[in-house]
Amino acid sequence: MKLTVKLLDIGSRDVMLHRNDARNIGVMQGDRVQVLVEARGSSSSAFVDTTATLISQGTVGIYREVNERLGLNDGETVEVRESGRPTSLEYIRKKMDGERLSKDETTAIIRDVVNDTISPAELTAYITASYIHELNSDEVEYLTRAIVETGDQLTFHTHPIVDKHSIGGVPGNKISLIVVPIIAASGLKIPKTSSRAITGAGGTADLMEVLAPVEFSAEEVQTMTLKVGGAIVWGGATNIAPADDRIILQEYPFKIDARGQMLASVMAKKYAVGADLVVIDIPVGQGAKVTTMQEGRKLAREFIDLGDRLNMQVECALTYGDAPVGRGIGPNLEVREALRVLEGSTAPGSLIQKSLAIAGIALEMSGKAGKGQGAQVAADLLQSGKALEKMRQIIEVQGGNSAVKSDDIVPGQNEFIVRAPVTGYIIELNNKSLISLARTAGAPHDTGAGLLLHAKKGERVKAGDPLFTMYADRPWRLQKAIEEGRRLMPILVEGMLLDRIPDSKKWE
Amino acid sequence: MKLTVKLLDIGSRDVMLHRNDARNIGVMQGDRVQVLVEARGSSSSAFVDTTATLISQGTVGIYREVNERLGLNDGETVEVRESGRPTSLEYIRKKMDGERLSKDETTAIIRDVVNDTISPAELTAYITASYIHELNSDEVEYLTRAIVETGDQLTFHTHPIVDKHSIGGVPGNKISLIVVPIIAASGLKIPKTSSRAITGAGGTADLMEVLAPVEFSAEEVQTMTLKVGGAIVWGGATNIAPADDRIILQEYPFKIDARGQMLASVMAKKYAVGADLVVIDIPVGQGAKVTTMQEGRKLAREFIDLGDRLNMQVECALTYGDAPVGRGIGPNLEVREALRVLEGSTAPGSLIQKSLAIAGIALEMSGKAGKGQGAQVAADLLQSGKALEKMRQIIEVQGGNSAVKSDDIVPGQNEFIVRAPVTGYIIELNNKSLISLARTAGAPHDTGAGLLLHAKKGERVKAGDPLFTMYADRPWRLQKAIEEGRRLMPILVEGMLLDRIPDSKKWE
Repeated sequence: MKLTVKLLDIGSRDVMLHRNDARNIGVMQGDRVQVLVEARGSSSSAFVDTTATLISQGTVGIYREVNERLGLNDGETVEVRESGRPTSLEYIRKKMDGERLSKDETTAIIRDVVNDTISPAELTAYITASYIHELNSDEVEYLTRAIVETGDQLTFHTHPIVDKHSIGGVPGNKISLIVVPIIAASGLKIPKTSSRAITGAGGTADLMEVLAPVEFSAEEVQTMTLKVGGAIVWGGATNIAPADDRIILQEYPFKIDARGQMLASVMAKKYAVGADLVVIDIPVGQGAKVTTMQEGRKLAREFIDLGDRLNMQVECALTYGDAPVGRGIGPNLEVREALRVLEGSTAPGSLIQKSLAIAGIALEMSGKAGKGQGAQVAADLLQSGKALEKMRQIIEVQGGNSAVKSDDIVPGQNEFIVRAPVTGYIIELNNKSLISLARTAGAPHDTGAGLLLHAKKGERVKAGDPLFTMYADRPWRLQKAIEEGRRLMPILVEGMLLDRIPDSKKWE
Repeated sequence: MKLTVKLLDIGSRDVMLHRNDARNIGVMQGDRVQVLVEARGSSSSAFVDTTATLISQGTVGIYREVNERLGLNDGETVEVRESGRPTSLEYIRKKMDGERLSKDETTAIIRDVVNDTISPAELTAYITASYIHELNSDEVEYLTRAIVETGDQLTFHTHPIVDKHSIGGVPGNKISLIVVPIIAASGLKIPKTSSRAITGAGGTADLMEVLAPVEFSAEEVQTMTLKVGGAIVWGGATNIAPADDRIILQEYPFKIDARGQMLASVMAKKYAVGADLVVIDIPVGQGAKVTTMQEGRKLAREFIDLGDRLNMQVECALTYGDAPVGRGIGPNLEVREALRVLEGSTAPGSLIQKSLAIAGIALEMSGKAGKGQGAQVAADLLQSGKALEKMRQIIEVQGGNSAVKSDDIVPGQNEFIVRAPVTGYIIELNNKSLISLARTAGAPHDTGAGLLLHAKKGERVKAGDPLFTMYADRPWRLQKAIEEGRRLMPILVEGMLLDRIPDSKKWE
């Protein structure tokens, strides 16, 4: 049916049809249609919203995400048709029935995900089926390749290209802000795409955005990397591995992170930027995603095997994930801490040691450092100021202020100090509670929000000593965080004497 | 955040927020919010659409389905809050992990489905997980009860109440239009709720709507049943077992019909109308949902067991499902055929025999007929005209024209006769192709659309004899059906000689 376009500024992938037009086309609320722009030979699928009043018969309301694809103007004519059932639904059904999917079937599903030909509910069925019927190595490889092929890719003509990735779950893990400039300062190239926080207090992209814009096309990332050796950008803006963002979004409500999808997600992003050498940081600990060394080793082996299949050399580092890295949690606090390290600060030790270890592995893999010498070579690049100089170049090439100093980055004005209720030892720092508290205070959206830890696990504190400070950009956010802090108690202080077992016999 | 209401006539369960308001509340496109009407103590959850232009800051656009719950007027003030993560997502995750769900957990999920607290994608995860990790008998019972409890129910003070259900998949299965009046004519009560076609050419509700309105509340169904002994209504309008519709909608794209959900779906609707005696018609055949007698018997046993748990007496009939029931497929054609049988026609035999068999079982279960006498008692009620008289009462009580005659119901004006290409025998009638063709011609929405079969399986036809006629209300629909008919060939004619196997040795 031919309909006249009316653009609607609603942020979803739907079209609005008058109820009578919908009936004539043969579709109902929620059904799938094809919108064809015959003059230009372009088309998009979309889901149907129906109305009897908001638009008149003969008109189709085109929502924002549909028009990002079609680029229509008000008053143009389009053809709207009932859309056939996508073949990829058959393949999802196959996966539900426990069968293995071929490369072509996997690619068809991922292509339909990226084109929004299948709905979020349909994608969820695929994710759930793949979570229950775990993907085997072949399927993981197919998924990885499909995620890569349905997005943009970087192509470098000089090699090696280096990349790193940290499995999430540990608060304050701002090491990319130190590792990337060290590696780039060694003369290697590292086009680092990173994520924004979904469940965390700040992803690397949220942190970098404090210093410079992070939204670039794949081509711009490539140009910047060629120019200064590295970049730290938000992957979501690049159209690199776009299917991955959608998969993660649908996994989010269930807090699942199906092994196969997780492997594909990480490795697709490395493959798509053209990486030859990849370091994967796997934090292991009670509060981390991976809780035992055994599990960590198994996961490491899977990353390495997938790397082999994709012709990438992968090395994994199992790292201490029981407690936050460094002392700051939340964008400004983390960026200030990382800049201080680049400026020469010798604390916090946990942040510096971890950054040098990860950077060192990459330097050894590339031959920039001899075996066992990587961390030392990394330390030299840090202490000589070369890493700081490189970070300034990266900030500048991304359009930020390269003269920035750590003291320019300040936490939110509203603060509250949480003090030790008793004298004793810090026996627990709860990662999940710390992250939750930083988010309640406003992180990552309010960049000044977050937590600064004054004491770490095993340290002795006196009653009244500060344990941590909560910062917020907005007073009511601070208030909510204070209330939640009372409930969650993310840091526990106890005397060395944890319990007394009395003799049941009384002294007489 | 307090916002001013602006009603938006869009048929989904969303609210529209200005981008800045969304940011302040802390939600993004697609997130879940709670809308509270503090003055009335009512609330609803909803999903977020964001805009920068369609509504101004300080205003919230309330979509139709949200307002069905809240009954707001333009200009009222509501509180819109970020919504916590529903606990039922934990239970869905449990099911994904292969665990069994308790009654309370199942009820929590189904309650959130009915309240739209969980999204279609989240419901799909539950359905997929339950499809893969099949529900056991306890879980099926919990699900059945939860579907019943989250909707309206009928309560009769006289017993027994009878109900029937046909498992779908066989075209032309209009038997309810004959079975219900026979049973009601015997003095029994049968409040029949039925479905509209999702994948078929016409559900019982679509057929009955040709004769009378079918949209009533549960209370109205009860009143009508008390008055004339029976009713044939659309279950979707009653708020009986509302969760079931949503489950079926999400299953639809994958053409799955998970055994546990199917059992619960059918039996919840029987339980909710207060049925004591239930006859389940299970068509068995190549083109039906159940393809072997063994599978049919297993399913029958499961229906009977679930009935026991719910204190309902269930009897199942395995019926011939290899070919359409009767000769008409599509609303008007089927209604005309059923009315003709009620008016005394002695054809088609398949329709009459099946209707009498199913009605007979119910009559025997209730004691209205002796063992083995049910079909004969049913035949008497049909031949005496009592069933026709009862059908007229049912049509009248539902607001239709009780003087209607079969000849008043005519198929679409646009017709095309498909003829036998060769002389031979009808060797195949393909159920799925016949349904698809009827739908292409416009059924069930265009009530005149459908197919009328002139020859059935095993019959001999001469080249040029009519095989079937396609009817459509609209010429272009007929055209599409003709094209599709050429491709699908739903009826195959072959000579008795199906193939020749030549000797490889040549005669010399």
